[in-house]
Amino acid sequence: MERYDVAVVGTGPAGVSAAITAKIRNKKVLLIGDRDLTKKMRQAHEINNYPGFPKVKGEDLAKALSGHLKQMEIEITDVKVVNIYAMGKYFSLQTSGETYEALSVIAATGVMPGKMLDGEEPLVGSGVSYCATCDAPLYRGKDVIVLGYGKEEEKEAAFLSEVARKVIYFPVYNGEPSDPADNVKVIKEVPASVKREGPKMVLTTAQGTVFETDGIFVLRESVSPGALIPGLATDGPHIVVDRQMRTNIKGLFACGDITGKPYQYIKSAGEGNVAALSAVEYLG
Amino acid sequence: MERYDVAVVGTGPAGVSAAITAKIRNKKVLLIGDRDLTKKMRQAHEINNYPGFPKVKGEDLAKALSGHLKQMEIEITDVKVVNIYAMGKYFSLQTSGETYEALSVIAATGVMPGKMLDGEEPLVGSGVSYCATCDAPLYRGKDVIVLGYGKEEEKEAAFLSEVARKVIYFPVYNGEPSDPADNVKVIKEVPASVKREGPKMVLTTAQGTVFETDGIFVLRESVSPGALIPGLATDGPHIVVDRQMRTNIKGLFACGDITGKPYQYIKSAGEGNVAALSAVEYLG
Repeated sequence: MERYDVAVVGTGPAGVSAAITAKIRNKKVLLIGDRDLTKKMRQAHEINNYPGFPKVKGEDLAKALSGHLKQMEIEITDVKVVNIYAMGKYFSLQTSGETYEALSVIAATGVMPGKMLDGEEPLVGSGVSYCATCDAPLYRGKDVIVLGYGKEEEKEAAFLSEVARKVIYFPVYNGEPSDPADNVKVIKEVPASVKREGPKMVLTTAQGTVFETDGIFVLRESVSPGALIPGLATDGPHIVVDRQMRTNIKGLFACGDITGKPYQYIKSAGEGNVAALSAVEYLG
Repeated sequence: MERYDVAVVGTGPAGVSAAITAKIRNKKVLLIGDRDLTKKMRQAHEINNYPGFPKVKGEDLAKALSGHLKQMEIEITDVKVVNIYAMGKYFSLQTSGETYEALSVIAATGVMPGKMLDGEEPLVGSGVSYCATCDAPLYRGKDVIVLGYGKEEEKEAAFLSEVARKVIYFPVYNGEPSDPADNVKVIKEVPASVKREGPKMVLTTAQGTVFETDGIFVLRESVSPGALIPGLATDGPHIVVDRQMRTNIKGLFACGDITGKPYQYIKSAGEGNVAALSAVEYLG
Protein backbone atom coordinates (compact mmCIF):
# COMPACT_ATOMS: atom_id res chain seq x y z
CA MET A 1 0.00 0.00 0.00
CA GLU A 2 1.17 3.51 -0.84
CA ARG A 3 2.34 5.14 2.35
CA TYR A 4 2.14 8.91 2.76
CA ASP A 5 4.54 11.04 4.78
CA VAL A 6 1.76 13.14 6.27
CA ALA A 7 -1.98 12.57 6.33
CA VAL A 8 -3.87 15.78 7.09
CA VAL A 9 -7.44 15.16 8.24
CA GLY A 10 -9.69 18.15 7.73
CA THR A 11 -9.96 20.90 5.12
CA GLY A 12 -10.72 23.95 7.21
CA PRO A 13 -8.05 26.65 7.47
CA ALA A 14 -5.95 24.48 9.82
CA GLY A 15 -5.84 21.48 7.49
CA VAL A 16 -5.30 23.59 4.37
CA SER A 17 -2.44 25.47 6.04
CA ALA A 18 -0.84 22.23 7.28
CA ALA A 19 -1.06 20.64 3.82
CA ILE A 20 0.47 23.69 2.13
CA THR A 21 3.44 23.84 4.49
CA ALA A 22 4.05 20.07 4.41
CA LYS A 23 4.01 20.15 0.60
CA ILE A 24 6.48 23.06 0.53
CA ARG A 25 8.75 20.89 2.66
CA ASN A 26 8.59 18.22 -0.06
CA LYS A 27 6.52 15.75 1.91
CA LYS A 28 4.09 13.33 0.30
CA VAL A 29 0.81 14.71 1.60
CA LEU A 30 -2.64 13.12 1.80
CA LEU A 31 -5.30 15.77 2.47
CA ILE A 32 -8.64 14.27 3.52
CA GLY A 33 -11.84 16.25 3.93
CA ASP A 34 -14.68 18.17 2.34
CA ARG A 35 -13.65 18.98 -1.24
CA ASP A 36 -15.50 22.32 -1.05
CA LEU A 37 -13.68 23.03 2.21
CA THR A 38 -15.87 23.02 5.25
CA LYS A 39 -19.52 23.95 5.35
CA LYS A 40 -18.80 26.06 8.42
CA MET A 41 -16.35 28.25 6.49
CA ARG A 42 -18.46 28.46 3.33
CA GLN A 43 -21.45 29.57 5.36
CA ALA A 44 -19.61 32.24 7.37
CA HIS A 45 -21.32 35.51 6.55
CA GLU A 46 -18.33 37.80 6.95
CA ILE A 47 -14.87 37.27 8.41
CA ASN A 48 -13.10 40.42 9.55
CA ASN A 49 -9.93 39.24 11.17
CA TYR A 50 -8.10 37.01 8.73
CA PRO A 51 -5.30 39.53 8.07
CA GLY A 52 -5.01 40.46 4.42
CA PHE A 53 -8.68 39.71 3.66
CA PRO A 54 -10.73 42.60 5.07
CA LYS A 55 -14.50 41.94 5.30
CA VAL A 56 -14.29 38.67 3.41
CA LYS A 57 -17.24 36.32 2.92
CA GLY A 58 -16.57 32.78 4.11
CA GLU A 59 -17.28 31.58 0.61
CA ASP A 60 -14.60 33.87 -0.83
CA LEU A 61 -12.01 32.92 1.76
CA ALA A 62 -12.76 29.26 0.97
CA LYS A 63 -12.20 30.06 -2.73
CA ALA A 64 -8.87 31.74 -1.96
CA LEU A 65 -7.75 28.71 0.06
CA SER A 66 -8.92 26.34 -2.69
CA GLY A 67 -6.98 28.39 -5.22
CA HIS A 68 -3.87 28.12 -3.07
CA LEU A 69 -4.21 24.32 -2.88
CA LYS A 70 -4.71 24.16 -6.64
CA GLN A 71 -1.68 26.33 -7.34
CA MET A 72 0.37 23.94 -5.20
CA GLU A 73 -1.18 20.86 -6.83
CA ILE A 74 -2.59 19.53 -3.58
CA GLU A 75 -5.69 17.40 -4.13
CA ILE A 76 -8.42 16.74 -1.62
CA THR A 77 -9.52 13.17 -0.96
CA ASP A 78 -13.17 13.63 -0.09
CA VAL A 79 -13.90 10.78 2.32
CA LYS A 80 -14.82 10.62 5.98
CA VAL A 81 -12.22 9.33 8.43
CA VAL A 82 -13.81 6.94 10.90
CA ASN A 83 -10.80 5.70 12.86
CA ILE A 84 -7.12 6.43 13.13
CA TYR A 85 -4.91 3.73 14.61
CA ALA A 86 -1.31 4.26 15.73
CA MET A 87 0.43 1.12 14.43
CA GLY A 88 3.88 1.92 15.84
CA LYS A 89 5.87 3.11 12.85
CA TYR A 90 2.89 4.37 10.90
CA PHE A 91 -0.80 5.22 11.18
CA SER A 92 -3.73 3.42 9.59
CA LEU A 93 -6.65 5.65 8.62
CA GLN A 94 -9.98 3.92 8.12
CA THR A 95 -12.32 5.96 6.00
CA SER A 96 -15.69 5.76 4.30
CA GLY A 97 -13.61 4.87 1.22
CA GLU A 98 -10.26 3.08 1.22
CA THR A 99 -7.91 2.56 4.13
CA TYR A 100 -4.83 4.80 4.02
CA GLU A 101 -1.41 4.66 5.65
CA ALA A 102 0.82 7.54 6.67
CA LEU A 103 3.98 7.98 8.72
CA SER A 104 2.47 10.94 10.54
CA VAL A 105 -1.00 12.39 11.00
CA ILE A 106 -2.24 15.93 11.52
CA ALA A 107 -5.75 16.05 12.99
CA ALA A 108 -7.54 19.20 11.88
CA THR A 109 -11.06 17.91 12.11
CA GLY A 110 -12.68 20.90 13.74
CA VAL A 111 -14.64 20.74 16.92
CA MET A 112 -17.84 18.75 17.06
CA PRO A 113 -20.79 21.11 17.23
CA GLY A 114 -22.81 20.38 20.33
CA LYS A 115 -22.29 17.58 22.79
CA MET A 116 -22.15 13.84 22.34
CA LEU A 117 -25.23 11.91 23.38
CA ASP A 118 -25.28 10.54 26.90
CA GLY A 119 -23.78 7.06 26.74
CA GLU A 120 -22.50 7.47 23.17
CA GLU A 121 -18.72 7.29 23.47
CA PRO A 122 -18.32 3.83 25.10
CA LEU A 123 -20.74 2.29 22.58
CA VAL A 124 -18.86 3.44 19.46
CA GLY A 125 -18.08 0.26 17.55
CA SER A 126 -20.54 -1.80 19.58
CA GLY A 127 -23.96 -0.56 18.55
CA VAL A 128 -23.09 3.04 17.68
CA SER A 129 -21.53 3.66 14.26
CA TYR A 130 -20.24 6.86 12.66
CA CYS A 131 -20.03 5.49 9.11
CA ALA A 132 -22.90 4.18 7.01
CA THR A 133 -20.63 2.95 4.20
CA CYS A 134 -18.42 1.01 6.62
CA ASP A 135 -21.03 -0.61 8.82
CA ALA A 136 -24.22 -0.94 6.73
CA PRO A 137 -23.45 -4.62 5.91
CA LEU A 138 -23.73 -5.45 9.62
CA TYR A 139 -27.41 -4.45 9.58
CA ARG A 140 -28.68 -6.24 6.47
CA GLY A 141 -32.33 -7.05 7.11
CA LYS A 142 -32.21 -5.48 10.56
CA ASP A 143 -33.50 -2.22 12.04
CA VAL A 144 -31.43 0.92 12.44
CA ILE A 145 -31.81 4.41 13.80
CA VAL A 146 -30.02 7.19 11.91
CA LEU A 147 -29.28 10.56 13.51
CA GLY A 148 -28.53 13.03 10.73
CA TYR A 149 -26.81 16.20 11.99
CA GLY A 150 -26.93 17.84 8.56
CA LYS A 151 -29.17 17.65 5.50
CA GLU A 152 -26.42 15.89 3.55
CA GLU A 153 -26.83 12.87 5.85
CA GLU A 154 -30.17 12.09 4.17
CA LYS A 155 -28.17 10.37 1.41
CA GLU A 156 -26.61 8.12 4.02
CA ALA A 157 -30.02 7.35 5.49
CA ALA A 158 -31.31 6.53 2.00
CA PHE A 159 -28.38 4.18 1.44
CA LEU A 160 -29.04 2.46 4.77
CA SER A 161 -32.72 2.10 3.88
CA GLU A 162 -31.66 -0.03 0.90
CA VAL A 163 -29.84 -2.44 3.19
CA ALA A 164 -31.75 -2.38 6.47
CA ARG A 165 -35.28 -3.61 7.03
CA LYS A 166 -36.52 -0.43 8.69
CA VAL A 167 -34.91 2.96 9.35
CA ILE A 168 -35.95 5.53 11.93
CA TYR A 169 -34.47 8.86 10.83
CA PHE A 170 -33.97 11.84 13.15
CA PRO A 171 -33.25 15.05 11.20
CA VAL A 172 -31.20 17.04 13.74
CA TYR A 173 -31.43 20.26 11.70
CA ASN A 174 -34.04 22.68 10.45
CA GLY A 175 -36.14 21.71 7.46
CA GLU A 176 -37.94 18.67 6.14
CA PRO A 177 -36.13 15.57 4.83
CA SER A 178 -36.70 15.18 1.08
CA ASP A 179 -38.47 12.05 -0.16
CA PRO A 180 -37.73 9.49 2.53
CA ALA A 181 -38.12 5.89 1.29
CA ASP A 182 -41.16 3.82 2.33
CA ASN A 183 -39.26 1.96 5.04
CA VAL A 184 -37.92 5.23 6.56
CA LYS A 185 -39.86 6.76 9.43
CA VAL A 186 -38.96 10.38 10.23
CA ILE A 187 -39.11 11.42 13.88
CA LYS A 188 -38.72 15.08 14.78
CA GLU A 189 -37.60 14.75 18.37
CA VAL A 190 -34.22 15.56 19.90
CA PRO A 191 -32.01 12.51 20.54
CA ALA A 192 -30.68 12.61 24.11
CA SER A 193 -29.15 9.30 25.22
CA VAL A 194 -28.28 5.82 24.02
CA LYS A 195 -27.70 2.55 25.82
CA ARG A 196 -27.40 -1.14 25.13
CA GLU A 197 -29.99 -3.60 26.46
CA GLY A 198 -28.87 -7.13 25.66
CA PRO A 199 -28.81 -7.52 21.87
CA LYS A 200 -30.80 -4.31 21.37
CA MET A 201 -29.89 -0.63 21.32
CA VAL A 202 -32.16 1.90 22.98
CA LEU A 203 -32.42 5.58 22.16
CA THR A 204 -34.29 8.03 24.38
CA THR A 205 -35.24 11.52 23.21
CA ALA A 206 -35.31 14.76 25.15
CA GLN A 207 -39.10 14.45 24.88
CA GLY A 208 -38.91 11.14 26.76
CA THR A 209 -39.85 8.80 23.91
CA VAL A 210 -37.95 5.50 23.82
CA PHE A 211 -36.95 3.72 20.59
CA GLU A 212 -35.51 0.22 20.33
CA THR A 213 -33.36 -0.86 17.38
CA ASP A 214 -30.42 -3.03 16.29
CA GLY A 215 -27.89 -0.27 15.56
CA ILE A 216 -27.59 3.49 15.80
CA PHE A 217 -25.81 5.55 13.16
CA VAL A 218 -24.69 8.95 14.44
CA LEU A 219 -23.78 11.03 11.38
CA ARG A 220 -22.09 14.36 12.13
CA GLU A 221 -19.68 16.51 10.13
CA SER A 222 -16.96 15.72 12.64
CA VAL A 223 -16.32 12.98 15.13
CA SER A 224 -15.14 13.47 18.70
CA PRO A 225 -11.37 13.02 18.85
CA GLY A 226 -11.46 10.43 21.63
CA ALA A 227 -13.77 8.24 19.55
CA LEU A 228 -11.65 8.80 16.40
CA ILE A 229 -8.21 7.97 17.79
CA PRO A 230 -7.85 5.37 20.56
CA GLY A 231 -5.37 6.38 23.27
CA LEU A 232 -5.45 10.08 22.48
CA ALA A 233 -5.26 12.51 25.41
CA THR A 234 -8.26 14.83 25.28
CA ASP A 235 -9.73 17.59 27.40
CA GLY A 236 -13.48 17.58 26.88
CA PRO A 237 -14.06 18.06 23.15
CA HIS A 238 -10.43 19.10 22.54
CA ILE A 239 -7.16 17.32 21.86
CA VAL A 240 -4.38 18.22 24.30
CA VAL A 241 -1.38 19.72 22.45
CA ASP A 242 1.75 21.62 23.37
CA ARG A 243 2.97 24.83 21.66
CA GLN A 244 4.46 22.69 18.88
CA MET A 245 1.04 21.08 18.27
CA ARG A 246 2.27 17.69 19.43
CA THR A 247 -0.27 15.31 21.03
CA ASN A 248 0.53 12.53 23.51
CA ILE A 249 0.89 10.10 20.57
CA LYS A 250 4.25 10.26 18.75
CA GLY A 251 3.81 11.27 15.12
CA LEU A 252 0.30 12.58 15.70
CA PHE A 253 -0.23 16.35 15.67
CA ALA A 254 -3.37 18.47 15.90
CA CYS A 255 -4.33 22.00 14.94
CA GLY A 256 -7.31 24.31 14.67
CA ASP A 257 -10.56 24.31 16.64
CA ILE A 258 -9.98 20.74 17.80
CA THR A 259 -7.08 21.98 19.98
CA GLY A 260 -9.25 24.46 21.85
CA LYS A 261 -10.55 27.99 21.85
CA PRO A 262 -10.52 30.58 20.43
CA TYR A 263 -12.31 29.17 17.38
CA GLN A 264 -10.84 31.55 14.80
CA TYR A 265 -9.82 31.03 11.18
CA ILE A 266 -6.44 32.73 11.46
CA LYS A 267 -5.55 30.93 14.69
CA SER A 268 -6.31 27.66 12.91
CA ALA A 269 -4.22 28.57 9.87
CA GLY A 270 -1.28 29.51 12.12
CA GLU A 271 -1.48 26.26 14.05
CA GLY A 272 -1.67 24.23 10.83
CA ASN A 273 1.67 25.69 9.82
CA VAL A 274 3.25 24.81 13.17
CA ALA A 275 1.78 21.27 13.13
CA ALA A 276 3.18 20.67 9.64
CA LEU A 277 6.66 21.83 10.60
CA SER A 278 6.55 19.63 13.71
CA ALA A 279 5.53 16.66 11.53
CA VAL A 280 8.41 17.45 9.16
CA GLU A 281 10.78 17.48 12.12
CA TYR A 282 9.33 14.17 13.38
CA LEU A 283 9.82 12.57 9.95
CA GLY A 284 13.48 13.66 10.18
CA MET B 1 -2.84 61.12 29.83
CA GLU B 2 -4.96 59.17 27.35
CA ARG B 3 -4.91 55.53 28.38
CA TYR B 4 -5.36 52.82 25.77
CA ASP B 5 -6.99 49.43 26.36
CA VAL B 6 -4.37 47.56 24.40
CA ALA B 7 -0.95 48.67 23.18
CA VAL B 8 0.35 46.42 20.41
CA VAL B 9 4.09 46.74 19.87
CA GLY B 10 5.19 45.62 16.44
CA THR B 11 3.70 45.78 12.95
CA GLY B 12 4.65 42.42 11.50
CA PRO B 13 1.85 39.89 10.88
CA ALA B 14 1.54 39.18 14.62
CA GLY B 15 1.04 42.82 15.61
CA VAL B 16 -1.27 43.57 12.69
CA SER B 17 -3.41 40.54 13.48
CA ALA B 18 -3.56 41.43 17.19
CA ALA B 19 -4.57 45.01 16.43
CA ILE B 20 -7.31 43.92 14.00
CA THR B 21 -8.88 41.48 16.45
CA ALA B 22 -8.64 43.88 19.41
CA LYS B 23 -10.32 46.61 17.32
CA ILE B 24 -13.11 44.22 16.28
CA ARG B 25 -13.69 43.61 19.97
CA ASN B 26 -14.18 47.38 20.42
CA LYS B 27 -10.99 48.02 22.31
CA LYS B 28 -9.09 51.29 22.12
CA VAL B 29 -5.94 50.13 20.36
CA LEU B 30 -2.50 51.75 20.09
CA LEU B 31 -0.45 50.07 17.35
CA ILE B 32 3.23 51.00 17.50
CA GLY B 33 5.78 50.08 14.86
CA ASP B 34 7.14 50.57 11.37
CA ARG B 35 4.49 52.43 9.35
CA ASP B 36 5.45 50.50 6.22
CA LEU B 37 5.17 47.28 8.22
CA THR B 38 8.44 45.54 8.86
CA LYS B 39 11.45 45.66 6.60
CA LYS B 40 11.75 41.90 7.01
CA MET B 41 8.29 41.34 5.50
CA ARG B 42 8.68 43.94 2.76
CA GLN B 43 11.94 42.37 1.68
CA ALA B 44 10.69 38.77 1.63
CA HIS B 45 11.12 37.56 -1.91
CA GLU B 46 8.21 35.14 -2.05
CA ILE B 47 5.97 33.70 0.64
CA ASN B 48 4.26 30.44 -0.26
CA ASN B 49 2.48 29.34 2.86
CA TYR B 50 0.27 32.20 4.01
CA PRO B 51 -2.99 30.43 3.09
CA GLY B 52 -5.06 32.42 0.62
CA PHE B 53 -2.05 34.23 -0.87
CA PRO B 54 -0.25 31.76 -3.13
CA LYS B 55 3.26 32.81 -4.22
CA VAL B 56 2.95 36.29 -2.75
CA LYS B 57 5.78 38.81 -2.61
CA GLY B 58 6.48 40.12 0.88
CA GLU B 59 5.78 43.60 -0.42
CA ASP B 60 2.33 42.57 -1.64
CA LEU B 61 1.44 40.78 1.57
CA ALA B 62 2.52 43.90 3.45
CA LYS B 63 0.21 45.93 1.19
CA ALA B 64 -2.70 43.58 1.86
CA LEU B 65 -2.14 43.87 5.62
CA SER B 66 -1.84 47.67 5.37
CA GLY B 67 -5.09 47.74 3.42
CA HIS B 68 -6.78 45.70 6.12
CA LEU B 69 -5.59 48.12 8.83
CA LYS B 70 -6.78 51.05 6.75
CA GLN B 71 -10.20 49.51 6.15
CA MET B 72 -10.54 49.10 9.91
CA GLU B 73 -9.26 52.62 10.61
CA ILE B 74 -6.30 51.43 12.65
CA GLU B 75 -3.40 53.87 12.53
CA ILE B 76 0.24 53.06 13.10
CA THR B 77 2.24 55.16 15.55
CA ASP B 78 5.72 54.99 14.04
CA VAL B 79 8.02 55.26 17.06
CA LYS B 80 10.48 52.92 18.70
CA VAL B 81 9.58 51.44 22.07
CA VAL B 82 12.55 51.54 24.39
CA ASN B 83 11.09 50.31 27.65
CA ILE B 84 7.84 48.86 28.90
CA TYR B 85 7.15 49.08 32.63
CA ALA B 86 4.40 47.18 34.44
CA MET B 87 2.97 49.83 36.80
CA GLY B 88 0.44 47.57 38.52
CA LYS B 89 -2.89 48.54 36.97
CA TYR B 90 -1.41 49.73 33.69
CA PHE B 91 1.72 49.73 31.58
CA SER B 92 3.95 52.68 30.72
CA LEU B 93 5.60 52.55 27.32
CA GLN B 94 8.65 54.75 26.84
CA THR B 95 9.30 55.42 23.19
CA SER B 96 11.54 57.50 20.95
CA GLY B 97 8.54 59.87 20.88
CA GLU B 98 6.00 60.33 23.67
CA THR B 99 5.36 58.07 26.62
CA TYR B 100 2.14 56.06 26.31
CA GLU B 101 -0.07 54.25 28.79
CA ALA B 102 -2.18 51.15 28.23
CA LEU B 103 -4.12 48.70 30.40
CA SER B 104 -2.61 45.76 28.55
CA VAL B 105 0.30 45.22 26.20
CA ILE B 106 0.86 42.78 23.36
CA ALA B 107 4.54 42.37 22.50
CA ALA B 108 4.95 41.47 18.83
CA THR B 109 8.39 42.91 18.31
CA GLY B 110 9.88 40.08 16.29
CA VAL B 111 13.03 38.30 17.20
CA MET B 112 16.27 40.19 17.27
CA PRO B 113 18.39 39.11 14.31
CA GLY B 114 21.67 37.70 15.55
CA LYS B 115 22.91 37.62 19.09
CA MET B 116 23.40 40.35 21.64
CA LEU B 117 26.95 41.46 22.21
CA ASP B 118 28.83 39.78 25.02
CA GLY B 119 28.21 41.83 28.14
CA GLU B 120 25.45 43.92 26.56
CA GLU B 121 22.33 43.06 28.54
CA PRO B 122 23.46 44.02 32.08
CA LEU B 123 24.80 47.35 30.81
CA VAL B 124 21.55 48.50 29.20
CA GLY B 125 20.72 51.81 30.89
CA SER B 126 24.19 52.15 32.34
CA GLY B 127 26.43 52.80 29.39
CA VAL B 128 24.53 50.95 26.68
CA SER B 129 21.54 52.73 25.15
CA TYR B 130 19.01 51.57 22.56
CA CYS B 131 17.56 55.01 21.82
CA ALA B 132 19.41 57.99 20.41
CA THR B 133 16.47 60.36 20.88
CA CYS B 134 16.03 59.41 24.52
CA ASP B 135 19.63 59.37 25.67
CA ALA B 136 21.55 61.78 23.42
CA PRO B 137 21.34 64.60 26.02
CA LEU B 138 23.41 62.46 28.42
CA TYR B 139 26.35 62.62 26.04
CA ARG B 140 26.52 66.31 25.17
CA GLY B 141 30.17 67.14 24.46
CA LYS B 142 31.20 63.53 25.15
CA ASP B 143 32.27 60.63 22.96
CA VAL B 144 29.95 57.87 21.81
CA ILE B 145 30.12 54.69 19.78
CA VAL B 146 27.13 53.92 17.57
CA LEU B 147 26.44 50.40 16.28
CA GLY B 148 24.02 50.70 13.37
CA TYR B 149 22.38 47.37 12.48
CA GLY B 150 20.60 48.84 9.46
CA LYS B 151 21.25 51.66 6.99
CA GLU B 152 18.38 53.66 8.50
CA GLU B 153 20.41 54.01 11.72
CA GLU B 154 22.75 56.46 9.92
CA LYS B 155 20.18 59.17 10.64
CA GLU B 156 20.46 58.39 14.32
CA ALA B 157 24.24 58.52 14.13
CA ALA B 158 24.02 61.89 12.35
CA PHE B 159 21.73 63.20 15.08
CA LEU B 160 24.16 62.00 17.77
CA SER B 161 27.05 63.66 15.93
CA GLU B 162 25.27 67.01 16.42
CA VAL B 163 25.24 66.50 20.19
CA ALA B 164 28.31 64.44 21.00
CA ARG B 165 31.90 65.57 20.60
CA LYS B 166 33.03 62.55 18.59
CA VAL B 167 31.18 59.54 17.16
CA ILE B 168 32.65 56.20 16.15
CA TYR B 169 30.15 54.55 13.81
CA PHE B 170 30.08 50.81 13.06
CA PRO B 171 27.89 50.03 10.03
CA VAL B 172 26.78 46.45 10.81
CA TYR B 173 25.36 45.89 7.30
CA ASN B 174 26.56 45.77 3.73
CA GLY B 175 27.25 49.03 1.93
CA GLU B 176 28.92 52.35 2.70
CA PRO B 177 27.45 54.95 5.07
CA SER B 178 26.39 58.05 3.13
CA ASP B 179 28.08 61.36 4.00
CA PRO B 180 29.19 60.89 7.60
CA ALA B 181 29.77 64.23 9.39
CA ASP B 182 33.32 65.42 10.10
CA ASN B 183 33.27 64.24 13.72
CA VAL B 184 32.07 60.74 12.72
CA LYS B 185 34.67 58.06 12.21
CA VAL B 186 33.47 54.95 10.38
CA ILE B 187 34.97 51.61 11.45
CA LYS B 188 34.21 48.50 9.44
CA GLU B 189 34.88 45.84 12.02
CA VAL B 190 32.45 43.51 13.74
CA PRO B 191 31.47 44.55 17.29
CA ALA B 192 31.85 41.59 19.66
CA SER B 193 31.75 42.62 23.32
CA VAL B 194 31.21 45.56 25.62
CA LYS B 195 32.22 46.23 29.21
CA ARG B 196 32.46 49.06 31.67
CA GLU B 197 35.82 50.20 33.02
CA GLY B 198 35.29 52.84 35.67
CA PRO B 199 33.65 55.88 34.03
CA LYS B 200 34.46 54.59 30.53
CA MET B 201 32.84 52.05 28.22
CA VAL B 202 35.01 49.66 26.22
CA LEU B 203 34.05 47.92 22.99
CA THR B 204 36.13 45.10 21.53
CA THR B 205 35.67 43.90 17.96
CA ALA B 206 35.86 40.38 16.56
CA GLN B 207 39.10 41.54 14.95
CA GLY B 208 40.49 42.29 18.43
CA THR B 209 40.59 46.09 18.25
CA VAL B 210 39.62 47.89 21.46
CA PHE B 211 37.72 51.23 21.52
CA GLU B 212 37.10 53.39 24.58
CA THR B 213 34.20 55.81 24.80
CA ASP B 214 31.61 57.40 27.12
CA GLY B 215 28.50 55.64 25.85
CA ILE B 216 27.53 52.95 23.37
CA PHE B 217 24.34 53.19 21.29
CA VAL B 218 23.19 49.82 19.98
CA LEU B 219 20.62 50.53 17.28
CA ARG B 220 18.73 47.48 15.98
CA GLU B 221 15.29 47.07 14.45
CA SER B 222 14.19 45.19 17.56
CA VAL B 223 15.33 45.03 21.12
CA SER B 224 15.79 41.87 23.19
CA PRO B 225 12.67 41.27 25.27
CA GLY B 226 14.54 40.97 28.56
CA ALA B 227 16.08 44.41 28.04
CA LEU B 228 12.73 45.87 26.91
CA ILE B 229 10.53 44.70 29.78
CA PRO B 230 11.98 44.32 33.28
CA GLY B 231 10.81 41.16 35.07
CA LEU B 232 9.75 39.32 31.93
CA ALA B 233 10.37 35.56 31.80
CA THR B 234 12.44 34.78 28.72
CA ASP B 235 14.08 31.74 27.18
CA GLY B 236 17.11 32.93 25.26
CA PRO B 237 15.86 35.44 22.69
CA HIS B 238 12.20 34.42 23.23
CA ILE B 239 9.43 35.40 25.63
CA VAL B 240 7.91 32.45 27.48
CA VAL B 241 4.16 32.17 26.75
CA ASP B 242 1.44 29.60 27.24
CA ARG B 243 -1.06 28.49 24.57
CA GLN B 244 -3.14 31.61 25.32
CA MET B 245 -0.08 33.81 24.64
CA ARG B 246 0.08 34.93 28.27
CA THR B 247 3.49 35.87 29.69
CA ASN B 248 4.49 35.72 33.36
CA ILE B 249 3.37 39.37 33.74
CA LYS B 250 -0.38 39.90 34.16
CA GLY B 251 -1.82 41.95 31.31
CA LEU B 252 1.22 41.40 29.11
CA PHE B 253 0.87 39.07 26.14
CA ALA B 254 3.25 38.16 23.33
CA CYS B 255 2.92 36.73 19.83
CA GLY B 256 4.91 36.04 16.69
CA ASP B 257 8.61 35.30 16.29
CA ILE B 258 9.37 36.70 19.74
CA THR B 259 7.55 33.70 21.28
CA GLY B 260 9.75 31.15 19.51
CA LYS B 261 10.14 29.12 16.37
CA PRO B 262 8.94 28.44 13.75
CA TYR B 263 9.42 31.95 12.37
CA GLN B 264 6.50 31.96 9.94
CA TYR B 265 4.11 34.70 8.87
CA ILE B 266 0.95 32.67 9.28
CA LYS B 267 1.99 31.31 12.69
CA SER B 268 2.55 34.93 13.78
CA ALA B 269 -0.82 36.08 12.45
CA GLY B 270 -2.57 33.23 14.26
CA GLU B 271 -0.85 34.01 17.54
CA GLY B 272 -1.70 37.70 17.22
CA ASN B 273 -5.35 36.79 17.13
CA VAL B 274 -5.07 34.59 20.24
CA ALA B 275 -3.05 37.25 22.13
CA ALA B 276 -5.70 39.88 21.35
CA LEU B 277 -8.55 37.69 22.56
CA SER B 278 -6.60 36.90 25.75
CA ALA B 279 -6.06 40.64 26.28
CA VAL B 280 -9.79 41.23 25.75
CA GLU B 281 -10.54 38.56 28.35
CA TYR B 282 -8.02 40.15 30.74
CA LEU B 283 -9.64 43.57 30.32
CA GLY B 284 -12.94 41.95 31.29
